[in-house]
Amino acid sequence: MLPPQISSTFHVHRGHSHLKWSKAIAPVLTVDSNDIVTFDTVDGSNGQITPTSTVEDILQFKAELADPLFGPVYVRGAEPGDTLEIEVLELKTADWGWTAIMPGFGLLTNDFPEAQLKIWKLDPNDSCATFKDGIRIPTHPFLGVMGVAPGEGEFPTIPPLDTGGNIDTRHIIVGSKLFLPVKVPGALFSCGDGHAAQGDGEVCGTAIETPMQVKVRFTIRKDMKWVTSPNYASPSSALTLAEDRGYYAVLGIDSDLLEATRKAVRGIIEYMVQTKNLTLVEAYMLASVSISLRLSEVVNMPNYGVSASVPLNIFSRSF
Amino acid sequence: MLPPQISSTFHVHRGHSHLKWSKAIAPVLTVDSNDIVTFDTVDGSNGQITPTSTVEDILQFKAELADPLFGPVYVRGAEPGDTLEIEVLELKTADWGWTAIMPGFGLLTNDFPEAQLKIWKLDPNDSCATFKDGIRIPTHPFLGVMGVAPGEGEFPTIPPLDTGGNIDTRHIIVGSKLFLPVKVPGALFSCGDGHAAQGDGEVCGTAIETPMQVKVRFTIRKDMKWVTSPNYASPSSALTLAEDRGYYAVLGIDSDLLEATRKAVRGIIEYMVQTKNLTLVEAYMLASVSISLRLSEVVNMPNYGVSASVPLNIFSRSF
Repeated sequence: MLPPQISSTFHVHRGHSHLKWSKAIAPVLTVDSNDIVTFDTVDGSNGQITPTSTVEDILQFKAELADPLFGPVYVRGAEPGDTLEIEVLELKTADWGWTAIMPGFGLLTNDFPEAQLKIWKLDPNDSCATFKDGIRIPTHPFLGVMGVAPGEGEFPTIPPLDTGGNIDTRHIIVGSKLFLPVKVPGALFSCGDGHAAQGDGEVCGTAIETPMQVKVRFTIRKDMKWVTSPNYASPSSALTLAEDRGYYAVLGIDSDLLEATRKAVRGIIEYMVQTKNLTLVEAYMLASVSISLRLSEVVNMPNYGVSASVPLNIFSRSF
Repeated sequence: MLPPQISSTFHVHRGHSHLKWSKAIAPVLTVDSNDIVTFDTVDGSNGQITPTSTVEDILQFKAELADPLFGPVYVRGAEPGDTLEIEVLELKTADWGWTAIMPGFGLLTNDFPEAQLKIWKLDPNDSCATFKDGIRIPTHPFLGVMGVAPGEGEFPTIPPLDTGGNIDTRHIIVGSKLFLPVKVPGALFSCGDGHAAQGDGEVCGTAIETPMQVKVRFTIRKDMKWVTSPNYASPSSALTLAEDRGYYAVLGIDSDLLEATRKAVRGIIEYMVQTKNLTLVEAYMLASVSISLRLSEVVNMPNYGVSASVPLNIFSRSF
């Protein structure tokens, strides 16, 4: 059930968790610039979902415990106005994960009012995870949550902030560097919310959620004064290779950008239901762990165009 | 100045242009399902911009003439409720193109109030177009506008509709198939607005605009009843290969999705200004022809996260 251990001189363990973004939370570790730190993280449910969970556990789910943060780590010498570089060196998932639809949460909450839960098997020697017979998702582990303490105030862990947090950005994979604006001495970095795979937007509200072992390197950057929100540099991505058999896309067109997004996601769900023998719930979950969401057109007023696309290589037969 | 001619049995020429989406516009050509048609299209300015234009021509620009449509083509047997498949077989640009900032138009109109114009040279034997010394954009020609007549009403050519039109979707390249919902007998397909390259969103309001020669195949599909807005299937994309040296990205975080998009674009512009020796205007134009715009996070209320990313291989030195 636990991910394979990764070792380093500096380690943040599972007991080092907290549930707020605040500079008032005392660091659990102090390191220098260029130091490497490992984190042992619980999944985004904070242990409320286990490999034997059922949909009853979704109905009992306590949102106030979700997205626990592991840390904070104090990086000696980081000062407000600096940038903290976090280089992602290693990410290891557990041998299981989960995806859920939680009532009232997600892009299409009105369309999907009922609680749903899927438990995944994850094999560290397999680059894919099986959704069902004939549908396999390439995994690309990443952390949903990486952030530093805000300058003032105390914030819950669910919404992302300019200082990072729950950014759920699937392109920040092993080999990527995340850059965050430092607001307090020491930066006070925390992370969590391991994902084995996720589509852009995490549309149903959850990814393939999993406990994760993480290794990162911190570097204080004095030369990136333009960083006022999360910036990142990523290698040519495994995600683009995942499109090696092409993709199918639906454009949502609407005068409201969020509604155009909803239409695009509804459209790609309908495509999968009609052509891939999936239920609506299955297609919504599959979209949440696999699609790209692109702002194709944002200037031709009064209408916006958003593309939701699914890579065709996840299906055993091509469209 | 003209793109190289492409030949077919059926041809729509430059005189076959119109400026409204309406079923009342008489077809210029009637073809059967599976027929191949070529189109000879003027650029999106409708000839108002030429290779010798200056910014004065932007100030005199008549928006009511923009985005002319070439067609319509009547596809015999297409009936309301069917889907029209448009397979893109060939696209050839002219040997020049243009990118402009037009006052009052674009994602960041308030930040960029002044008219600007850049004329590009396009070489059919070069897979890139030079922006300036040290910055080259991979070209990936596509049509900004492809659409069929709406069932009722008369609509201008600028906003995209559920029946297509100015969708400016850069992923619909040679080898792609576009699927549009047929609303009137014969479908009445028109197209135009050739782009040699464009970033997601066409953020400054224009791409590398160019006259274009086009060859497509029409097929009536009775088996795609889910198509109620533009759908498309694309091959593994030249656009992803363009990221072979990785990319740099900025996340815009905001409780308003459009504002998050603006923040992301402003951020990637600032990155390019700070690190690539570009002016703000240059960086805005460069963003408009090269970036990806992804909806990274759309469920962690109250904040959305949009990623604007630039492929690093367009710069002669890596970040």
